[in-house]
Amino acid sequence: MLTDRSLIRISPREHDVLNKLGRLSAASGSHSPSLGTMQKSIPEINVEIDACYLSNPLATELFWTHFNADMLADPDLFKRMLEAYPSQNNAIAERLAPVVGVEADHLFIANGATEAIQAVIHNYSSHIHISTPTFSPYYEFAGPGCQVTEFKLDPADNFRVDPEKYVQSVLDSGADTAVLISPNNPDGYLIPDTDLECILSKLTRLRTVIVDESFVHFADRPLPEGELPTLTGITEQFDNVTVMKSMSKDFGIAGIRAGYAIMQPERVKQLLDHGYLWNTSGMAEYFFTLFGRPDFLIEYRTELMKYRSYIDRFTTATAKIDYARVFETSANFQLMQLPEGVSAEIVTALLLLRHGIYVRGCGDKIGLDGEFIRVAIRTESENERVLDALAEILG
Amino acid sequence: MLTDRSLIRISPREHDVLNKLGRLSAASGSHSPSLGTMQKSIPEINVEIDACYLSNPLATELFWTHFNADMLADPDLFKRMLEAYPSQNNAIAERLAPVVGVEADHLFIANGATEAIQAVIHNYSSHIHISTPTFSPYYEFAGPGCQVTEFKLDPADNFRVDPEKYVQSVLDSGADTAVLISPNNPDGYLIPDTDLECILSKLTRLRTVIVDESFVHFADRPLPEGELPTLTGITEQFDNVTVMKSMSKDFGIAGIRAGYAIMQPERVKQLLDHGYLWNTSGMAEYFFTLFGRPDFLIEYRTELMKYRSYIDRFTTATAKIDYARVFETSANFQLMQLPEGVSAEIVTALLLLRHGIYVRGCGDKIGLDGEFIRVAIRTESENERVLDALAEILG
Repeated sequence: MLTDRSLIRISPREHDVLNKLGRLSAASGSHSPSLGTMQKSIPEINVEIDACYLSNPLATELFWTHFNADMLADPDLFKRMLEAYPSQNNAIAERLAPVVGVEADHLFIANGATEAIQAVIHNYSSHIHISTPTFSPYYEFAGPGCQVTEFKLDPADNFRVDPEKYVQSVLDSGADTAVLISPNNPDGYLIPDTDLECILSKLTRLRTVIVDESFVHFADRPLPEGELPTLTGITEQFDNVTVMKSMSKDFGIAGIRAGYAIMQPERVKQLLDHGYLWNTSGMAEYFFTLFGRPDFLIEYRTELMKYRSYIDRFTTATAKIDYARVFETSANFQLMQLPEGVSAEIVTALLLLRHGIYVRGCGDKIGLDGEFIRVAIRTESENERVLDALAEILG
Repeated sequence: MLTDRSLIRISPREHDVLNKLGRLSAASGSHSPSLGTMQKSIPEINVEIDACYLSNPLATELFWTHFNADMLADPDLFKRMLEAYPSQNNAIAERLAPVVGVEADHLFIANGATEAIQAVIHNYSSHIHISTPTFSPYYEFAGPGCQVTEFKLDPADNFRVDPEKYVQSVLDSGADTAVLISPNNPDGYLIPDTDLECILSKLTRLRTVIVDESFVHFADRPLPEGELPTLTGITEQFDNVTVMKSMSKDFGIAGIRAGYAIMQPERVKQLLDHGYLWNTSGMAEYFFTLFGRPDFLIEYRTELMKYRSYIDRFTTATAKIDYARVFETSANFQLMQLPEGVSAEIVTALLLLRHGIYVRGCGDKIGLDGEFIRVAIRTESENERVLDALAEILG
């Protein structure tokens, strides 16, 4: 593990903790053990900035402001949220539809985007073509009866999805399902609208094309009054497209488990008839109801614009970095490739140990050959500290 | 609708509200529209006692006592519950296993028992044999590719599951899955241990046998120190059995969405690998962690014993009723068949209008021919009011 000791100078104490971290990573089967596990197992580590967690911290604050005000205004509300049976999936869709900008019968409300992924893959896919690197549930949830094939994105080409090569690869694979994440996780590449339209128009014979727009709010796209950024303007022309959306990235409320998918009404109806009717908790119902409120939308848009300016400032700064290769991003994180001989595992560990900063090492990401870290963009002061820390270790 | 006007005298005002209720039931496609919908649509109705909701109110109070104390002791806990990614399904199983009394790898943690039902039926059933009346998800979630056949329970025989007839019916049906709820919803019949063992021993060639013990805590069964009532002592001999358990009935926390299933480790692993890994919310994780605490278990057992005495007192009183046929129950509710010519719809509506009491009309329950209501057993004072109200309307 400590092969690059000569490249980055570390103390004997750091060496010990690094070994503990290495054992923990090995035990958890992941290069990024959970924050809780890590803090409990290694008391020397004190995480001050979670730059592993992908969310807009301003929107999280906005959520809490409304949550606290709503609980104060109706002291019995929280009790009801936990005790009463929540509304059915389709009743919640009615409330969410206006803000999403689709008809309610196109909306499938999910217990986190992961449930929507599972439901769609289990019911409408027998062979999935993924683009690597990608979000792991798209291949992990495929199950034994479902084939998975791969289109390899090229770091040398900024992980660009070349429409012609991509379409050819999908058709050659014989898959009935293609998955496009835009902006993609972990590289942040946004497929240009014309490319996306071109791709989708050539995949109309597929049973299912998934377009995951979980990070699209952070892309530099126009934001007309009263609307939110979305790719549905393009995707709604194609009946076989399902749009996936996590709410954890926009609001930082991963513990609520809230996401949705947009698809043809027949599919929504089939899924609801097929057992996904009671999948929303009272807390998630509260969140979706809040998100569907016009006054909340106005405030959220303001916070989103502000956060986008943080992203701009961060990426302007990272464009000047010479100690790592930094990939352009349209999401709220940035992928960095470390110089040859420098291990991502050691860099993430030193960021933790010396600076209390947790970033995502990408050693377990299929399709990333080399040493990569993914850095979440947080508040202005946190971003500054992250950049200073990276410079200290790698500069 | 108002055919039994001559049997139960109602005022013109009541007549109007009854018509509104009838339209609401028709619009919602159910004989029991949700409490929220009803209260919002018909302001004349003020529900003071929810005897439709099946739960132990003492355990709900106990939950809140601990919840409030835990939030006070760690003011940051609630924020983390909503913001952080919850633990994976199997990590939560580790914490729950001791109180359930099985190994953690046999436990599938679910987003409500309904998710466990969906997961098992979708993955391990192609033909389900149900016993009617039953809990509707067992046939509703079957989906188009899954056949459903039926064993009709006989009210004249107290909805008893006759082992010989039942086994014959399952085998004749050719089903690969059988579902037994014990105590059953809506009739409260508990299959005696010897009968259950006999049935399961004859169904070992089935792919899946579901035993739903969601109401077993309320049955009059021994409760050894440090344990909870369960049928797993019988079921664990049979590899093809999956035990289902809702937590909403025991704790009245339906909005949290918490349930679990006990099954062979290979099946748990398959389901987790197949996309049910991130299905627990932060609130549900908190609940399962609390339920797994030994100190909580002691307190819960005390409240359960107390609630069981309420059930005893209620059923002793209803045994004397002569205005309806009352079925013996081992659950925390009681099914009543109304005299010929008296409509359950009108009785439930009058209970609401005159007494603010909401009971479950059973008009939409498959396998119940006749007019039935299901009455949840609540606190002592509520139970008394329910019995007085029933006597006023039917007596």
